[in-house]
Amino acid sequence: MHRDGAARRGKIFLPHGEIDTPQFMPVGTAASVKAIAPDDLYKMDAQVVLGNTYHLLLRPGPEVIAQMGGLHRFMSWDRCILTDSGGFQVYSLAEKRKISEEGAVFQSHLDGSRQELTPERATQIQVQLDSDILMAFDECPPSESPHVYHQHSLERTTRWAVRCKAEWERLGGKGALFGIVQGGLYKDLREAHSAQIAALDLPGNALGGFSVGEEPERMWEGVEHAAPLLPADKPRYLMGVGTPEDLLRCSLAGIDLFDCVLPTRTARNGLLFTKRGRLQIKAARYARDQRPADEECSCYTCRTFSRAYLRHLFAARELLSFRLNSIHNLTFFLELMRALREAIEGGEAKAFADRMLASFAAGPD
Amino acid sequence: MHRDGAARRGKIFLPHGEIDTPQFMPVGTAASVKAIAPDDLYKMDAQVVLGNTYHLLLRPGPEVIAQMGGLHRFMSWDRCILTDSGGFQVYSLAEKRKISEEGAVFQSHLDGSRQELTPERATQIQVQLDSDILMAFDECPPSESPHVYHQHSLERTTRWAVRCKAEWERLGGKGALFGIVQGGLYKDLREAHSAQIAALDLPGNALGGFSVGEEPERMWEGVEHAAPLLPADKPRYLMGVGTPEDLLRCSLAGIDLFDCVLPTRTARNGLLFTKRGRLQIKAARYARDQRPADEECSCYTCRTFSRAYLRHLFAARELLSFRLNSIHNLTFFLELMRALREAIEGGEAKAFADRMLASFAAGPD
Repeated sequence: MHRDGAARRGKIFLPHGEIDTPQFMPVGTAASVKAIAPDDLYKMDAQVVLGNTYHLLLRPGPEVIAQMGGLHRFMSWDRCILTDSGGFQVYSLAEKRKISEEGAVFQSHLDGSRQELTPERATQIQVQLDSDILMAFDECPPSESPHVYHQHSLERTTRWAVRCKAEWERLGGKGALFGIVQGGLYKDLREAHSAQIAALDLPGNALGGFSVGEEPERMWEGVEHAAPLLPADKPRYLMGVGTPEDLLRCSLAGIDLFDCVLPTRTARNGLLFTKRGRLQIKAARYARDQRPADEECSCYTCRTFSRAYLRHLFAARELLSFRLNSIHNLTFFLELMRALREAIEGGEAKAFADRMLASFAAGPD
Repeated sequence: MHRDGAARRGKIFLPHGEIDTPQFMPVGTAASVKAIAPDDLYKMDAQVVLGNTYHLLLRPGPEVIAQMGGLHRFMSWDRCILTDSGGFQVYSLAEKRKISEEGAVFQSHLDGSRQELTPERATQIQVQLDSDILMAFDECPPSESPHVYHQHSLERTTRWAVRCKAEWERLGGKGALFGIVQGGLYKDLREAHSAQIAALDLPGNALGGFSVGEEPERMWEGVEHAAPLLPADKPRYLMGVGTPEDLLRCSLAGIDLFDCVLPTRTARNGLLFTKRGRLQIKAARYARDQRPADEECSCYTCRTFSRAYLRHLFAARELLSFRLNSIHNLTFFLELMRALREAIEGGEAKAFADRMLASFAAGPD
């Protein structure tokens, strides 16, 4: 592993391949990165995608996926997959949820069916999916919850992590189980919980409960404090983050893995990330603009189509718009991380990040 | 040109390439074959796509496309493009239309703006789009209209075709202007109108007004009668047709070109065409089906994904479903025509068609 300040340039070895870090993971919630097929993902050199246990539990169900040979074969993706534990979606999507020491009982947001997720069940499902990185089942309280609520919650999250580890080992210990540190923006709680989770000696660790509504500056500060608390010799994953600015700043703070729906979700809304900041493709000024979305980008979209055409597709609500915009945004995120890894290797991480942040702020032509 | 009975195996030479006939043309209404990018079209060896003058007139406008270098450059498709004249959509989509000898005045179905299409304007737009095959501006009456209505209408369509030809020649005569024969299911009118349109000696001719609601058997019978009335030494295009059964039967009747939204529209509704008939991918029996949609198909979708996965994508309303299903259906239509061309070359067109029709009727496993 190369180090450059707190930033780290590493490699994670997993059943379905290697991950160069820092790395961004496209989100494939329901066994599909929205509007994007594996052929596109291979071309942009994605190394790992994320699947959501909550969504796959409800549809098509882990038994179906297991019978089809696991999530990789089901979605025809032969590189790495990280699955979350479903915990976060139980809090954000499910209806009539009840949390107890045992786990969570809730109603499916799709059909109202009664569902249960416990540390054991969440682990079993991720084993059925054949994940490369499995996440411990945790509770993610709203960041504005009081200190005492966070404290009780993360103590339970630790007890749940112990149960996840036991179940994962019982089932063969394939892949890498990551623990999750919570604690919101309370530094004392982050410190206490990091120690508890680190003591479990899991293959990797994650920060949960960031980027859940707080200002970016507070998040960056929280991550700068919390990242070094995680074991230095294991991968560190910042869950659900973030913008290009977040990725740069938090990589400098020592984070190795990121995931976020941002590049694909904004793509579907016509927002394109470029080296010179964000571009709203629906803007009238692009109607006759022959240039690619990002003149420095080598993705299929930028090599092939003009801003004028992308604007037309978006205005006409053409389905192709979703794929082309998503290819570009994902390529942008992955390429940003590739360049950052190179900068870390060269000992120029901070200079690279400063240059990119200034460039983003300049705004598109 | 090879002949096998009435069936013809030909080649059309156009500014942007050659078209092997009989050929199916994917429909790219608004400068995009829905959910499909040019990379997919090249892989399935599409030779020509259709653009809709009516839609492109309203959005983004022919001036924008001309300024971007024409429709090929705008949509990054360097093979052939056929554009219709907009006539059919004026009747089927536009609001408050008024038809006169001069042409059609109507309101845009998008924003209510006042628009005008005349034979001259429709031709000018298609020249601005840089089409390889331009269609004459015609009136397409409902097939159930009385004989006398059809008769007056097609006499005007002939006068409009004369004006289209004059305008096309005035603008340089690039590409190939096709005349359109109307007449509904009235054989005497088809005969009279074919003679009028043939007399214009245009580079190609089309049959309009079929597959507008009549039973397939009546359409096939009408085309069997009408196709041989068109000049034998020029391409014959059957507009807006059709199903795989239609393509086989009407190719046997001497048709060279087809277009239809059917493969892409049904794909978006989860209907997949296979050598063993139609497959409704949402059916519960495919939930754990490891087989490809069509075991004899070599498209990306069938080489890569199971019925179980395609069913899941459709059920979860994943955007990828539209692309994968469309790739398969278009490949199926294009491959059917390729095999038919081979059969015509071998003098086995009828036997091939009979075999395929029997296979379609067998139904999927």
